[in-house]
Amino acid sequence: MIKVGIVGGTGYTGVELLRLLAAHPFAELAAITSRAEAGRAVADLFPNLRGETDLAFIAPDPAQLKACDLVFFATPNGVAMTQVPGLLAEGVRIIDLAADFRIADREVWEQWYGMEHAAPELLAEAVYGLPELNREAVAEARLVANPGCYPTAVALGFLPLIENGLVVTDFLVADTKSGVSGAGRSASVANLMGEMGESFKAYAIPGHRHQPEIRQTLSRVSGQPIGLTFVPHLVPMIRGIEATLYARLNDRSVDLQALFAERYRHDCFVDILAPGSHPETRSVKGANSCRIAVHTPLDGDVVVVSSVIDNLVKGAAGQAVQNMNLMFGLDEDCGLKQVALLP
Amino acid sequence: MIKVGIVGGTGYTGVELLRLLAAHPFAELAAITSRAEAGRAVADLFPNLRGETDLAFIAPDPAQLKACDLVFFATPNGVAMTQVPGLLAEGVRIIDLAADFRIADREVWEQWYGMEHAAPELLAEAVYGLPELNREAVAEARLVANPGCYPTAVALGFLPLIENGLVVTDFLVADTKSGVSGAGRSASVANLMGEMGESFKAYAIPGHRHQPEIRQTLSRVSGQPIGLTFVPHLVPMIRGIEATLYARLNDRSVDLQALFAERYRHDCFVDILAPGSHPETRSVKGANSCRIAVHTPLDGDVVVVSSVIDNLVKGAAGQAVQNMNLMFGLDEDCGLKQVALLP
Amino acid sequence: MIKVGIVGGTGYTGVELLRLLAAHPFAELAAITSRAEAGRAVADLFPNLRGETDLAFIAPDPAQLKACDLVFFATPNGVAMTQVPGLLAEGVRIIDLAADFRIADREVWEQWYGMEHAAPELLAEAVYGLPELNREAVAEARLVANPGCYPTAVALGFLPLIENGLVVTDFLVADTKSGVSGAGRSASVANLMGEMGESFKAYAIPGHRHQPEIRQTLSRVSGQPIGLTFVPHLVPMIRGIEATLYARLNDRSVDLQALFAERYRHDCFVDILAPGSHPETRSVKGANSCRIAVHTPLDGDVVVVSSVIDNLVKGAAGQAVQNMNLMFGLDEDCGLKQVALLP
Amino acid sequence: MIKVGIVGGTGYTGVELLRLLAAHPFAELAAITSRAEAGRAVADLFPNLRGETDLAFIAPDPAQLKACDLVFFATPNGVAMTQVPGLLAEGVRIIDLAADFRIADREVWEQWYGMEHAAPELLAEAVYGLPELNREAVAEARLVANPGCYPTAVALGFLPLIENGLVVTDFLVADTKSGVSGAGRSASVANLMGEMGESFKAYAIPGHRHQPEIRQTLSRVSGQPIGLTFVPHLVPMIRGIEATLYARLNDRSVDLQALFAERYRHDCFVDILAPGSHPETRSVKGANSCRIAVHTPLDGDVVVVSSVIDNLVKGAAGQAVQNMNLMFGLDEDCGLKQVALLP
Repeated sequence: MIKVGIVGGTGYTGVELLRLLAAHPFAELAAITSRAEAGRAVADLFPNLRGETDLAFIAPDPAQLKACDLVFFATPNGVAMTQVPGLLAEGVRIIDLAADFRIADREVWEQWYGMEHAAPELLAEAVYGLPELNREAVAEARLVANPGCYPTAVALGFLPLIENGLVVTDFLVADTKSGVSGAGRSASVANLMGEMGESFKAYAIPGHRHQPEIRQTLSRVSGQPIGLTFVPHLVPMIRGIEATLYARLNDRSVDLQALFAERYRHDCFVDILAPGSHPETRSVKGANSCRIAVHTPLDGDVVVVSSVIDNLVKGAAGQAVQNMNLMFGLDEDCGLKQVALLP
Repeated sequence: MIKVGIVGGTGYTGVELLRLLAAHPFAELAAITSRAEAGRAVADLFPNLRGETDLAFIAPDPAQLKACDLVFFATPNGVAMTQVPGLLAEGVRIIDLAADFRIADREVWEQWYGMEHAAPELLAEAVYGLPELNREAVAEARLVANPGCYPTAVALGFLPLIENGLVVTDFLVADTKSGVSGAGRSASVANLMGEMGESFKAYAIPGHRHQPEIRQTLSRVSGQPIGLTFVPHLVPMIRGIEATLYARLNDRSVDLQALFAERYRHDCFVDILAPGSHPETRSVKGANSCRIAVHTPLDGDVVVVSSVIDNLVKGAAGQAVQNMNLMFGLDEDCGLKQVALLP
Repeated sequence: MIKVGIVGGTGYTGVELLRLLAAHPFAELAAITSRAEAGRAVADLFPNLRGETDLAFIAPDPAQLKACDLVFFATPNGVAMTQVPGLLAEGVRIIDLAADFRIADREVWEQWYGMEHAAPELLAEAVYGLPELNREAVAEARLVANPGCYPTAVALGFLPLIENGLVVTDFLVADTKSGVSGAGRSASVANLMGEMGESFKAYAIPGHRHQPEIRQTLSRVSGQPIGLTFVPHLVPMIRGIEATLYARLNDRSVDLQALFAERYRHDCFVDILAPGSHPETRSVKGANSCRIAVHTPLDGDVVVVSSVIDNLVKGAAGQAVQNMNLMFGLDEDCGLKQVALLP
Repeated sequence: MIKVGIVGGTGYTGVELLRLLAAHPFAELAAITSRAEAGRAVADLFPNLRGETDLAFIAPDPAQLKACDLVFFATPNGVAMTQVPGLLAEGVRIIDLAADFRIADREVWEQWYGMEHAAPELLAEAVYGLPELNREAVAEARLVANPGCYPTAVALGFLPLIENGLVVTDFLVADTKSGVSGAGRSASVANLMGEMGESFKAYAIPGHRHQPEIRQTLSRVSGQPIGLTFVPHLVPMIRGIEATLYARLNDRSVDLQALFAERYRHDCFVDILAPGSHPETRSVKGANSCRIAVHTPLDGDVVVVSSVIDNLVKGAAGQAVQNMNLMFGLDEDCGLKQVALLP
């Protein structure tokens, strides 16, 4: 059994990790910390876990975490980087679900996250935990930076095109939409149901932190800087991300359907739909799956990709468990075979 | 009083027309027809109209319609074109809320709508009823083609850019999202709440009928063919359209905020938000308003416009009443001063 | 013109008052106060009001309020009672949308609201502003206690039965359901869309403040204490209340349909539906209307009433404007003729 | 392995059965029939099942069903009763998720379902499949009538009270609320999202088929006829039922909390919440669980129970699998350990 700790388990990513770990045959949850909820039973905060766990939140406690094989950080940005060095030194492996180690360029990170990085020496070592891109590196990693939700949906949709040099990379568009659980579980007027319900809007058009993260991934694959316009939107539903990606083709002769299918032939969590399909976010609700359709509408000089994930699963906790499986030599889909809840 | 008839008032566009006309000081609803609901009280089908109207649906009846000053067609595509010539001959003016007269090129229309046009001789005369573009022509028109919902939101967002030649027009992207009332009020499994609720998806990526309509508008303004990739999406809410528009700027020096404000200075139903804003669909729910924000994110070589309307109001029935006001010499906002319902 | 002030206009009741007053021909908004938002344009907080008002929130200012003919309090419970005496002394009339003056029995009020009453001398004078019950008293009132949202729906549904002594009054059941706007616009985890969306629950079963308010109304009408079990529920939608009321009939021979119709024959905002109907909350969305159906299912010894209102309109701001109309001798429906938004 | 057949798997109950059976270690889906969808891949209709099953729908085929150990009927009412006798004769065991065998009294059944019963000789044999009431009988049954969704939530909430004679049984009230998936997956205007979204209403107040089903269960337990007023409502969400139950206590001295806990001590799928709790439907979304809270508000002479289930799981497919487990000697929770999806 893998002895697992969770730091900061009171948000939506935390409860989703708990749901998935409850069904995992080889992981044993040893400790879950929360400064605010210390002493409270986990199942009291999240009633869906009644009968699944007797654990209570504990105050942050390095000793208990150091006794774990693996610690997940489900904390706000800026927390993991202060605790990770100490845990690594004790031989604990880390998966950070926040953004602390996602961007290799310290300056870029500090500019977008508005603080000084507390562990810049680890930026080079941290592995960007998108298994479909970095499977081998994840398996060897001490420290995995679990990708952002939008970056997962966008990168998986663009990768086959960029890897094969098929599109003009100076004007890529990613128009993305997320359910409200992506905004987190903190009290705020903007996230009330009275504010978000029955309404749709774009946000962060001037710039969003996931833009440099996606640009880093795609630029590495491309071998040159790419130009990406990234606009996120808020959808009045709880779970799900859809990304619609646009790029000009510089080669219309390629069979994109076959290319996408081939690219992800060995990736059990990426599903390329039949030609003409439109993936629905509900088809992945609660499942660690990314479903993708590729189109070349009308004149055929533009490629349009639609990619869907559950932001809390393949976009966060599920991908983290997938990375854990790789790090500990388990089957990649161990504990992740849940069928999406439809309707 | 303008004596008004409605043909086909049992859909969402129909009930919205009724709601607006009930508040209009100079319009008098004389007849409303429906083959399926003939004999049934309007307020029985639409309980929000209880106490507002005593009218019952009648079977289609040319005589009653010919006695009207104006007839709205809120029918499926292909119906208006068979009845309009006869009514025009009697001096009745027409606003068609369907697509029969929106596209001037008969071949293009027949290709997208999959039927032969029954009144091609009227295509040249029909005025495309986007008042912010064709105000004077609408005022003089016998036959107005009320624009589609997506085309209204997209055209109003792109117009200032295209009219001033500020963007590269061979790769425009319109990523649009609509509430489910846009899918109509016909029984179908796909439109059940069990199917649409808590889910988001793109649809019609290979091609949607609003693409040629938008392309026609923008190409006319541009003076040359434009390249437009148009992808609609379905949002799990009832009312509202948001269009996010992307284009490369060929001149970064222009003050786009000032340009948009100036362009719509005299248009009471177009509201340009302050720099940095993100319009929400709920800010126009039930109102005949289009709210727009213009951005140049990050590097500044791409312009992003976000434009919102209520698909049933400025995207359909409200715009139709706005056109009626122009045609009959009334104040453009007569009967259209409803404040949006928020929350 | 009635010169109107609003104290505390940043909640959902406040924005709804503003929407309705914007359409009122004889009310002029002179001042709106908010400690937290002083200096901010009202239309900046509530974008649906862009173009409707140039007013900005001001800090609480007795001088400006004293210059008004009427002041609405849309404040949390406990605020109005501290300011009302001073305003009354200046001849200003008051409509309190909070609970400060709803319960005549000071002890009961203090027990349920957990504070000492600051103006108990006004409790006897305050008129409970349910026009369908107290129309004449409202017209004469200096101080009107605008009823709670649930109490409005429940009282209108029970009144005809209690007034006529038709039901056993020691075991009345009111099972009520409200959209989330009833929970207000304050930041709290419980009211996030991630918490409230796609879920339904009862709350406050041990006791809710609206129970003594309803009991007071019905006991007065009955002439004896009534036994009422009141359970509210939260519905994942924004606006609307439905109340399902249950009581045993002690006389099965009465024509309840006729009785209800007769009871509300002169009440323009109460609509008794045809036999066999089921009112939908959407049929009153945005409208100052209460729609009611009365049934005697199966064996016929139990009466079931279903009553719907928009909690922000007939359940709050609309009823307040209705009361204002009565107080100033206007037509009762002046400025309140909005048709409900459906769909 | 249990060889399983499903008749009529194209509705929401069908897809949920498929989701649960995909995770069941001892059930093997051998055949699924649908007249309308014969030949179509199951995963094509329900994209959440992509990768889970290669099965296609087949036309109804007695031979394939007779080769099964167990056949589930997920058909409209009136279908199972025509096919069950033939299958039983071949030794196939049956779980009918429709209503054909739920009511033992043929006359009552025929009155409520409006057709002649085709297999009345089986009504006495059929076991009402509420395991918490009839566990032993289910284990021995050839034919199980899977309870309705509302009856499951209501019966589990009332049972401890009725079994112990604690309440006055001539005036029980069950005010119940269901998500829209309970209305099924057939095309109809009434079930469109444009009709159901953002609205709440009661329906079937004059009488609903689940009333006699619940009355039968409670009357049997009570040993005498009970008087039940049952009103269902429609909630704008997809999954979930909440039932609020009201009864007068005839003995206030009993510790109801302890009584409920004791009653369900050995029932792994019934969870009695702590005193003062209010169960949320989301706490059981996707899980085969019923969570219950019991209250005695205010004066203490009335008991109020709130009971929640997922209508498609404990209210249909999950309970069916629970019954299958009992019939085949498996652990009752085999394949049913899914944690509810929250948020």
